[in-house]
Amino acid sequence: MKVVKFGGSSLASGNQIEKVFQIVMSDPARKVVVVSAPGKRFAEDQKVTDLLIECAERCLSNLDSQEIVAAVIKRYATIAEELQLPSEIVSEIQADLEARLNGDRCKPERFIDSVKASGEDNHAKLVAAYFQEQGVEATYVNPGEGGLLVSAEPGNAQVLPESYERLYSLRDRSGLLIFPGFFGYSKEGEVFTFSRSGSDITGSILANGLKADLYENFTDVDAVYSVNPYIVKRPKEIKELTYREMRELSYAGFTVLHDEALVPAFRAGIPVQIKNTNNPLAPGTRIVNERDNTNGPVIGIASDQGFCSIYVSKYLMNREIGFGRKLLSILEEFGLSYEHTPSGIDDISIILRENQFEAELEEEITKRIIAELHADEVKFEHSLALIMVVGEGMRHNVGTMAKASKALAGASVNIEMINQGSSEVSMMFGVKEVDEKRAVQALYDEFIASVTV
Amino acid sequence: MKVVKFGGSSLASGNQIEKVFQIVMSDPARKVVVVSAPGKRFAEDQKVTDLLIECAERCLSNLDSQEIVAAVIKRYATIAEELQLPSEIVSEIQADLEARLNGDRCKPERFIDSVKASGEDNHAKLVAAYFQEQGVEATYVNPGEGGLLVSAEPGNAQVLPESYERLYSLRDRSGLLIFPGFFGYSKEGEVFTFSRSGSDITGSILANGLKADLYENFTDVDAVYSVNPYIVKRPKEIKELTYREMRELSYAGFTVLHDEALVPAFRAGIPVQIKNTNNPLAPGTRIVNERDNTNGPVIGIASDQGFCSIYVSKYLMNREIGFGRKLLSILEEFGLSYEHTPSGIDDISIILRENQFEAELEEEITKRIIAELHADEVKFEHSLALIMVVGEGMRHNVGTMAKASKALAGASVNIEMINQGSSEVSMMFGVKEVDEKRAVQALYDEFIASVTV
Repeated sequence: MKVVKFGGSSLASGNQIEKVFQIVMSDPARKVVVVSAPGKRFAEDQKVTDLLIECAERCLSNLDSQEIVAAVIKRYATIAEELQLPSEIVSEIQADLEARLNGDRCKPERFIDSVKASGEDNHAKLVAAYFQEQGVEATYVNPGEGGLLVSAEPGNAQVLPESYERLYSLRDRSGLLIFPGFFGYSKEGEVFTFSRSGSDITGSILANGLKADLYENFTDVDAVYSVNPYIVKRPKEIKELTYREMRELSYAGFTVLHDEALVPAFRAGIPVQIKNTNNPLAPGTRIVNERDNTNGPVIGIASDQGFCSIYVSKYLMNREIGFGRKLLSILEEFGLSYEHTPSGIDDISIILRENQFEAELEEEITKRIIAELHADEVKFEHSLALIMVVGEGMRHNVGTMAKASKALAGASVNIEMINQGSSEVSMMFGVKEVDEKRAVQALYDEFIASVTV
Repeated sequence: MKVVKFGGSSLASGNQIEKVFQIVMSDPARKVVVVSAPGKRFAEDQKVTDLLIECAERCLSNLDSQEIVAAVIKRYATIAEELQLPSEIVSEIQADLEARLNGDRCKPERFIDSVKASGEDNHAKLVAAYFQEQGVEATYVNPGEGGLLVSAEPGNAQVLPESYERLYSLRDRSGLLIFPGFFGYSKEGEVFTFSRSGSDITGSILANGLKADLYENFTDVDAVYSVNPYIVKRPKEIKELTYREMRELSYAGFTVLHDEALVPAFRAGIPVQIKNTNNPLAPGTRIVNERDNTNGPVIGIASDQGFCSIYVSKYLMNREIGFGRKLLSILEEFGLSYEHTPSGIDDISIILRENQFEAELEEEITKRIIAELHADEVKFEHSLALIMVVGEGMRHNVGTMAKASKALAGASVNIEMINQGSSEVSMMFGVKEVDEKRAVQALYDEFIASVTV
């Protein structure tokens, strides 16, 4: 049994939904279809979710929202027309949206969640109607009735553990189940959404709850690439990778799949297949627990800009129990999240995302570190890029670091920082931002260009 | 003006003290002579300090200490005889030691400090007597009277900042000043010793206080070696290195100079010259603030065994503000000191010295990390060696890492861990203990065998 999730662009028009229908019907194992809100049809198009957020915010500011409501309804109406669905479905959607907009506004965040969630909810109803029109037994499932309980955290709901058992009983229902993504219900019966792109999460939760054999995630790319196509032209596709590899890659710029979305599938050991709605015959990329390591140590290279480092040195730092902990506490008091802390004997560098900083904050932090920890030197370095070289096969592979650093040296890239712990499936290099592309290209040429991944 | 310190083996016999005399007299800039207690004359010999500690401990346990006292006095008597000194000096030493042994035992640690300190104190008197016998103007200086004030921490005294100004006035005294190492006086006038090998510290404090041009540290090796001679045969000597390089090397097994000893000289920017009493014409090794980087990026390679790592992984760890800090707090609660914390996206490894652990503690820590941080995996890895590749020239030297990792790969050494932060003068590799020697030899061949250091 498979849970299949389709992204917004896969459901953006009648034509796209016809493709979805063909895909779902071509494999009887596909039992649950998770539906996103209509996405973009072309680059300048607007996503329904974006329209809904704007709509809710205008309502809260007591501004007129008629025009945006009309734009939303128009999207559904266009799709219904393209699919030759009876107009009742559109009236039903309109009534639902208006009811939400006239709902309780005392708790603005909950109000926004309720409006936002209508994008997926109503689209699931429309998609179910289309499947029914084609003579297929298909039912819209409301997440509350279906058993998807979440925490009462607006815009960042977390699935409640008891959901999984409840969802399991969905297996007993006959026909296809059309399930809206992105939201669940609190124990009090209110709607709360996951973080943005949360339909991926819904699919993963359902796959876990229903003990699916596979979680298929249909999007608009053929596969996960081994490197960013904006840096390396026509890079190789990855056929299979592990959850950990995917996670390491997604940290630094690979955004095919929502990070958190992998968790429920990962915990249940259910493989995830990334596929392309517009090219369903392409094999796509499979994310698994373990994979055979047959094609060289490295599976992908990711990189991201916008990092800085705080370098702190103090003679005999190494002797002070608690130095690192105190340093991290200071950063925590400023609400700063850090990424890594490579260290020497008497120095430590803290790598953080640069967008957390302003010049003033820098000064304040420097002062506190000097005053409280009596550091000899505190120094900020800016405009760093982090490059992740990822692959399960790198573990205990003698010579991988030699190859990587040789490739970087050959491209005249200075390594500012290296971070490699035991049992890892990645090596991280810190380089200057200006060197990023050259570094990634060099690593790609060394590790991936010559092998099948 | 120079402060000159002689180690225990340089003052272990009459013959050695004659060498010391020649060395001191050969350079009129040598003003202050810091004296250690008599050390070993041959491998099986006993250091006077060890005898004194045993003696003090026996007294505290009300055991007979006559034999050990006799052995201590015999050492001084032998030296006095070899130097043809009048026997009064030995009587004086004996009276001093007996007075200390009959002193207040209410505070056992202070009693031990007082007895221990007699080794240096009495030897300074003896050495001063010898210089005087040779017709040289030389005066024994008592640290209390001279102005060396320390905190009241038995066995781990810290110099008080006001000492430096007081010590400066020693410049005005005429003739040579013979100053005992290893201890100072508290404000209440009690004797407290530095940590073991603390005569190095005394010399460094005096160099700082007297604003010396150079701090000469005479010991029994020609120079600091670029690598451990037990691993690489006849390794190259280091002519000049920076405080930071020395510190990085000393962390992992280079024990020529007491770690803390460098601090006062470092703070005052006074160079430290390591020289050999038994071969004073050898140029030795100079420790400086900055050096020209002319001989390749690496100046030395050090290594040490007995490390272990705690590997902690948790999916989405990266998102949790405070994870690292909480983890370090747990270790701190167990009184554990850690060395490094290389990290991946969702995992972190903590490197610690293995001798802090027992199997039970391991289990307890694992339980707490899982219970409090909800980690997915906690794993101990044992028998690791850390290798430090050190050199100011490594900073921003493209290709150093490539050479190092290629050398390790060529020696079939798997790199378990790498830690390299920004602005550092070292690279650290974690390898399995069984690979340590092979790794060090390979790095030496790559970086040092072919260049002058």
